[in-house]
Amino acid sequence: MHLVAIGGSDAGISAALRARELDPSVDVTVVVADAYPNFSICGIPYYFSGEVAPWQSLAHRTHADLEATGMNLRLNTFATSIDVAGQQLAVRDETGQLSNIAYDELIVGTGALPSYAGIMGLDELTPEDGVHVIHSMGDTFALERFLTERGPKTAIIIGAGYVGLEMAEGFTARGIRVTQLQRGPEVLSTLDPELGALVHSELTDHGVEVHTDTVVHGVEKSDSGLTVHAERGGIRVTHSAEVILAVVGVRPNTTLLADAGATLGPAGAVSVDAQMRTGLPHVFAAGDGVATHHRLLGLTYLPLGTTAHKQGRVAGENALGGQAQFAGSVGTQVVKVFDLVASRTGLRHDEAAAAGFTPLTTQAIADDHKRYYPGAQPISIRITGDAGSGQLLGAQLVGRLGTETAKRVDTYATALFAGLTVEQVSDLDLSYTPPLGSPWDAVQVATQAWSRAAAAR
Amino acid sequence: MHLVAIGGSDAGISAALRARELDPSVDVTVVVADAYPNFSICGIPYYFSGEVAPWQSLAHRTHADLEATGMNLRLNTFATSIDVAGQQLAVRDETGQLSNIAYDELIVGTGALPSYAGIMGLDELTPEDGVHVIHSMGDTFALERFLTERGPKTAIIIGAGYVGLEMAEGFTARGIRVTQLQRGPEVLSTLDPELGALVHSELTDHGVEVHTDTVVHGVEKSDSGLTVHAERGGIRVTHSAEVILAVVGVRPNTTLLADAGATLGPAGAVSVDAQMRTGLPHVFAAGDGVATHHRLLGLTYLPLGTTAHKQGRVAGENALGGQAQFAGSVGTQVVKVFDLVASRTGLRHDEAAAAGFTPLTTQAIADDHKRYYPGAQPISIRITGDAGSGQLLGAQLVGRLGTETAKRVDTYATALFAGLTVEQVSDLDLSYTPPLGSPWDAVQVATQAWSRAAAAR
Repeated sequence: MHLVAIGGSDAGISAALRARELDPSVDVTVVVADAYPNFSICGIPYYFSGEVAPWQSLAHRTHADLEATGMNLRLNTFATSIDVAGQQLAVRDETGQLSNIAYDELIVGTGALPSYAGIMGLDELTPEDGVHVIHSMGDTFALERFLTERGPKTAIIIGAGYVGLEMAEGFTARGIRVTQLQRGPEVLSTLDPELGALVHSELTDHGVEVHTDTVVHGVEKSDSGLTVHAERGGIRVTHSAEVILAVVGVRPNTTLLADAGATLGPAGAVSVDAQMRTGLPHVFAAGDGVATHHRLLGLTYLPLGTTAHKQGRVAGENALGGQAQFAGSVGTQVVKVFDLVASRTGLRHDEAAAAGFTPLTTQAIADDHKRYYPGAQPISIRITGDAGSGQLLGAQLVGRLGTETAKRVDTYATALFAGLTVEQVSDLDLSYTPPLGSPWDAVQVATQAWSRAAAAR
Repeated sequence: MHLVAIGGSDAGISAALRARELDPSVDVTVVVADAYPNFSICGIPYYFSGEVAPWQSLAHRTHADLEATGMNLRLNTFATSIDVAGQQLAVRDETGQLSNIAYDELIVGTGALPSYAGIMGLDELTPEDGVHVIHSMGDTFALERFLTERGPKTAIIIGAGYVGLEMAEGFTARGIRVTQLQRGPEVLSTLDPELGALVHSELTDHGVEVHTDTVVHGVEKSDSGLTVHAERGGIRVTHSAEVILAVVGVRPNTTLLADAGATLGPAGAVSVDAQMRTGLPHVFAAGDGVATHHRLLGLTYLPLGTTAHKQGRVAGENALGGQAQFAGSVGTQVVKVFDLVASRTGLRHDEAAAAGFTPLTTQAIADDHKRYYPGAQPISIRITGDAGSGQLLGAQLVGRLGTETAKRVDTYATALFAGLTVEQVSDLDLSYTPPLGSPWDAVQVATQAWSRAAAAR
C-alpha cells in the first residue's frame, strides 16, 4: 500500500500523519513543492513583527519530526499531472527532471494561490520591484530580504482581511508607516461594519492610515517608486510607497485536479464529498483547494487552516479504507490586531438572509468579567439568529486582548455545531468567577439581548 | 398581583428583576434578611485581597438601581413562616416587630448556610474570638474589622475549596501567613487529585502552608490563641493561629420551606421541578436552598451562583404564569488561585462511575497557543467520557492566568449541554490564530488523546 499526498501544508501533512498513525505499515510519500513542509503560514506575520525568530520555529514540526513518523518527503517536487486510470503521479524535481510516482491512494492538498483580484500590474511586478504577496515561505524570504536590504519606510497594504491586518501590525512594529487600502466600506469585511469599525480605530490608533471604499485598479513602478492607482467614491486617487503588499484573498489551486477530470464547485474549488473523495477513483482532496462543507450553508468555499487540518485527517483515514466524515465548518475565525481580538462564527446578517434564513441581528456590549474586579473590559458582541425558529446563526465578537474573546467565540461555535437556539445559549451552564466572568457570561448577555429584541418584534 | 421574593442574593433578586422586566405592572416585594441586597458574595475574597474597594462596589446593582426597576425592598426583614393556605408570609423586622405580607405568588431564595461539618467549637466561638465564616456581608465586615483591629499575622483556613483557596490568596496578599487544612487527599476536591496537585503547588509557591488528609475535629480558644485539633494519617496534630476561617461547605437553608410542608430532596435541599415549583401552591423556590436539576445526574445538590441566577429568572417568569424551564446544570465551575485558573464541567471519573456510566478518563497537556508565538503556556486537561457510547461526561482544566482556560471550559460545557460525544468535540470548528490558539485547539488535543485511549482499550 503506497499512499501519496501532495502538499506540504496543513491538509497534505495532516493526511500523511493520520495515515501513519492509523497504520505504521503503510508507505506514505508527501510531495512538497518547496523545501518547507509543515510550516505555519498563519504565523508569517509574527515573523515580520519580530515576535517569532528564527523563521525555522514557524514549522509545526521539523523535517526530522516528520521523518520520524515514517513518512517520506519529496521536497522541491512539483506535481504536474495525475494519470487517474494508471494511478501514477507525474512530478518534476528542482533540476527539471520528470518522473512518475505510482500510488494506491492519492490525496491532493495543493491549497490556494494568492488572488490578484484583477489588479493591473500585480502579476508583472515582482518582489525585486517591491511588490509582494506572502503565501509561502519563499514569499516570506523575499519580503524579509527586501525589508532588510532596502529598509523601506513606507508600505501600502492592499486588502484589510486577516493577513492584511496582521501585516499592518507587523510592518508598524518594524517602524514602517502603513497605508491600508480596503475595497469595502469597512476593514475586516468578515465582520459586520459596526464591529469592523472598532478594528479600524485600533489600526488608526497605532498609526496605520486606513482608506476604505478604495478600489485598486493597478500598481505601477516608476523611477520615483511604487504607485497604486485606485478609485474612492468615484474619484481617482493614487498612493505611493516603497513597498506594496497585496493580500486580497486567495483562489483554489485546482489545475492538477481539474486537468485530471475532477468536478469543480463553489468558487471553482474542487468538489468533494464529506469523506473528501473527489469522485476520481483513489483520489482524495482536502484543504484550501476544495469546496467546504458548511453546517449552515451546505457546500461553499471557505479556506481555513483549521478546516484543512480536519479535512486532511479525514482524507488520510479514508485513504486507508476508513469511513471518517468531515463534520463541517461553521466558519469560525479569529484575528489579533494590535491589542484587539476580533472573532466570528457562523453567518453574518446578510449571509444568513442570502442563505434563506430570516435573520435578526442585535448588538450588545458586556464586560469580560465583573466590573468591580480590576481590569474589566467591554466585549462588543453581535448575535444573528433566525427570527422564526430561534436558531442561532452566527456571532461576532470584538474585545481587547486578555478578555478571552478568542475562546468565547468557541462557545457560540459549539452551539452552532450542535444546532442550539439563541435561547439555549442563554441556558448554557458557563463558568463564572469574578476575575474571569460574570454570572451571566458576556456570551449570554448578548443572547439575552437578542431574545428581548426577538420578543419585541 | 403581588409577587413576593425572599432573599436578597442571586435567586431572589433575579426572580424579582425578571418579573418586573416581563410585566412592569406587577407589584414585587423582595424580603431581604440584611441590609445588603444583590451583593456579589463570590467577590468577597477580592475585597479582602484589596483588589476590590470600597465594599459597596461588590453590589451587582445598587439599592437605587434595584428600586429604579420598580421593586420594593424590605431590608433587615427576616421571613419566619409561610401560611401556604392563606398566602401570607410572616416576617420580623429589625426591631423585632412581627407582621404579615400577603402574596399572590411567593418565590423563596433563602440560599444556604455555612456548614460546620461537625467541627467542635465552631458554633460557639465567634468573630470576636477570631473564628470566622464568610457567607454574608455581615460576616465580611466582622472579619475585616478583626483583621484591621487585631492585625493577625497568622491564619488557619479550614477547607480548600473555591472560597478557601481564594481567601488563602486574599490573606496572603495582606501579609498574613496562611495554613490551609484540607480533609481530602488533595486541595480543590472538585478536581481529580492529579490536577488538584497543580493548585497545591501554586499555593505553596506563594507561601501557603498546605496540609491535606487533615480531619479537623475541633477548634479551641485559649490564652495563647486559637488552636485547631485535627488528625492526619491517624496521628493527632494541632495548628495554632491568630485567626481561623472555616470554609468547609454549605448546607441548604430550608427551615422556612420545610416548616411550610415542602418536600426535601438530595442533601436535604428543597425539591423543585424544572419550573422551580415546590409543590406547595403558589410557592416557588430557587437558588442554593433547592435541589439542582443536573443534565447528567438528574436531581442533585450543587449550589452555584450561576445556577441561582438562572433558576431565579425561571421562577420569576413562572410566578407570572409563564412556563419557563430551568435547562439544568452541568456543574461548570472555575476558580483563580494566585496566577492559576482551575475549571471543571460535567462529571469527574468517580462521579461518572457512581452515576452508572463506564467512564474512561485521560489527561493531556497542550499549549494555549502556538509555541512559536511568545508566552505559550501549557494547559493540563482531563477528559472523562463514556467508554461505551463515547459521550462526553466531563472535563477539568488547569492553566495559568491568561491562557483562556476559564472560557475553554465553556466549550466543553456547551458540548455537554448538547450531549455531544468526545469525538464530536474533536470535530468542532474552534477559533485559531497563532497568538491565541492552535489549529487543533488545546480542547481538541485533549479529546483526541481520549479517543486514542478509547480505541486502544
